[in-house]
Amino acid sequence: MMNTQIILANRPVGVPGPEHFERREVPVGKPGEGDVLIRVTHWSVDPAMRGWANDVPNYSPPVALGDPMRSFGVGEVLESRHPDYTEGDVVHGLFGWQTHKISDGSEISRKVTETDLPRSYALGIMGLNGVTAYFGLRESCAAKAGDTVVVSTGAGAVGSAVGQIAKIMGCRTVGIAGGAEKRRACIEDFGYGAAIDYKSQDVGGALAEACPDGVDCYFDNTCGPISDAVMEHLALGARITICGTAAVTDWNPTPMGPRVHRQLLVARARMQGFLAFDYADRTEEALAALAGWLREGELTVREHFLDGPEAAMDAIGMLYRGENTGKLIVRV
Amino acid sequence: MMNTQIILANRPVGVPGPEHFERREVPVGKPGEGDVLIRVTHWSVDPAMRGWANDVPNYSPPVALGDPMRSFGVGEVLESRHPDYTEGDVVHGLFGWQTHKISDGSEISRKVTETDLPRSYALGIMGLNGVTAYFGLRESCAAKAGDTVVVSTGAGAVGSAVGQIAKIMGCRTVGIAGGAEKRRACIEDFGYGAAIDYKSQDVGGALAEACPDGVDCYFDNTCGPISDAVMEHLALGARITICGTAAVTDWNPTPMGPRVHRQLLVARARMQGFLAFDYADRTEEALAALAGWLREGELTVREHFLDGPEAAMDAIGMLYRGENTGKLIVRV
Repeated sequence: MMNTQIILANRPVGVPGPEHFERREVPVGKPGEGDVLIRVTHWSVDPAMRGWANDVPNYSPPVALGDPMRSFGVGEVLESRHPDYTEGDVVHGLFGWQTHKISDGSEISRKVTETDLPRSYALGIMGLNGVTAYFGLRESCAAKAGDTVVVSTGAGAVGSAVGQIAKIMGCRTVGIAGGAEKRRACIEDFGYGAAIDYKSQDVGGALAEACPDGVDCYFDNTCGPISDAVMEHLALGARITICGTAAVTDWNPTPMGPRVHRQLLVARARMQGFLAFDYADRTEEALAALAGWLREGELTVREHFLDGPEAAMDAIGMLYRGENTGKLIVRV
Repeated sequence: MMNTQIILANRPVGVPGPEHFERREVPVGKPGEGDVLIRVTHWSVDPAMRGWANDVPNYSPPVALGDPMRSFGVGEVLESRHPDYTEGDVVHGLFGWQTHKISDGSEISRKVTETDLPRSYALGIMGLNGVTAYFGLRESCAAKAGDTVVVSTGAGAVGSAVGQIAKIMGCRTVGIAGGAEKRRACIEDFGYGAAIDYKSQDVGGALAEACPDGVDCYFDNTCGPISDAVMEHLALGARITICGTAAVTDWNPTPMGPRVHRQLLVARARMQGFLAFDYADRTEEALAALAGWLREGELTVREHFLDGPEAAMDAIGMLYRGENTGKLIVRV
């Protein structure tokens, strides 16, 4: 039995593309005492993977050349010699881009028990994306009913969850996304009160119209010119959550932008970096809420599937080019 | 009896200087029913006054041309027809650059009752500077014992109070100031554990040496290159308080600087605008603590006096050129 891997073959600067990866087939080993053998069926594609592939200081060490690309995945247990897992269990974890993973359990983040929902949800709304949206909005942004909440990448995997949770919480929601189709999705699929297409609209003017009382919460996945425009419209006491920086592909050297100090001072606003891992001990709380909303039909999820291992090689590039139409997942 | 005023005669762009002010003598009026007549003896000179003189959006409306320059002051009541004040009371408030002020009480911020301390302290350590330091450090920076606290303009009126209060709280303190004399003052007068002269030292290298575990709290009065250097040394969970932006003299257009988003994200740090006015209902708490530390000799205060009304005209410039050696006050 062979394990198909997509390995990091060259160190990228910026967004990794097909030229940085290679397909490799290696024999699937035998799980030792205490191990489980997992057939990984779905690989996740997330913006943070750009940082994992680059050799720059980050909140995770870079992936070693020759290793399967680091990624979250979901799969089922084929064989277990671990007391906590049984054949047939569905598990989620940091399994990398490979079809088979032998783990001592340390890479498994959780057993997927909500078997009434699609397994792939564990990579998105019932995984890091949903948990990120939940805590980023409720804790870091400290959103409350009546707030005007602006979300960049408003139709994205995290952003669409932020917008919908904010609406459930009683906030006014404004989504920013690129292109007419994503703008349509913001309004029609994800229920934003207003949506802005940054590719065809003047973001500043559209924000002034959509947020007459200013922006209370800005959930930022982009950095760059979109964020610069939002910063011009802060309400007093605004909270800005920096969750991602998709518009900036290279941080070496640090790119320049308008200084935010005076905007923060005048609005007594706060700007805060956010990583869902810091709320790991409260994951169950978020998953229970998300599963409840999904079952009640209050959360709409869009997934974009690619098929076969080779499709992974350009998948991070697709994300950064904005070509995906939902949570990007490789089925293998 | 004449009232000597320093009025804003021309609208400055950037830092106002002598060419923007004129001296004017007008008769002192008679206080009406409900008014007090105050002999203002000390005028305050504060960085925020640059913003008050400029006609740009700010947290206060700009000073009208022809009006006395807006400033805090302290003085004594010459005549009172107001039930709350008696002849001889010492009062602090927004009296402007003039020797006599008739007020219905709305411009008076408080009666100065700590008459065992110098009256001028009401303009600094026992006024906005001390209250700013107290709440900015304890609430916005959320400093706690053991934190490494870095203060820009570490020898300034606010900064020197921040550094000393942080030391009292059990923090490690690092002051950044311009010039050998201010660096000496940081160490010898204000008790910083380390001090950096940004004019003669490499700030980044000196910070790395002084903060081997990174910066937990950064109390920023400067913006600009000093802040950019501090942002390279954030500890996990760092708190940055934006209290002033002295290094930037003009915000129109917004100056460019390195984008802070990734630094905030990697450190899960927060950067927050702070204005002491937001803690107005807790002023008594701060003043009681500050007076206690002053009486116990735990707080050192340096004041820089200018004499006579005309000296005020270049005083804001002196602040921005870093020429003052303590809290800048005009005695009139």
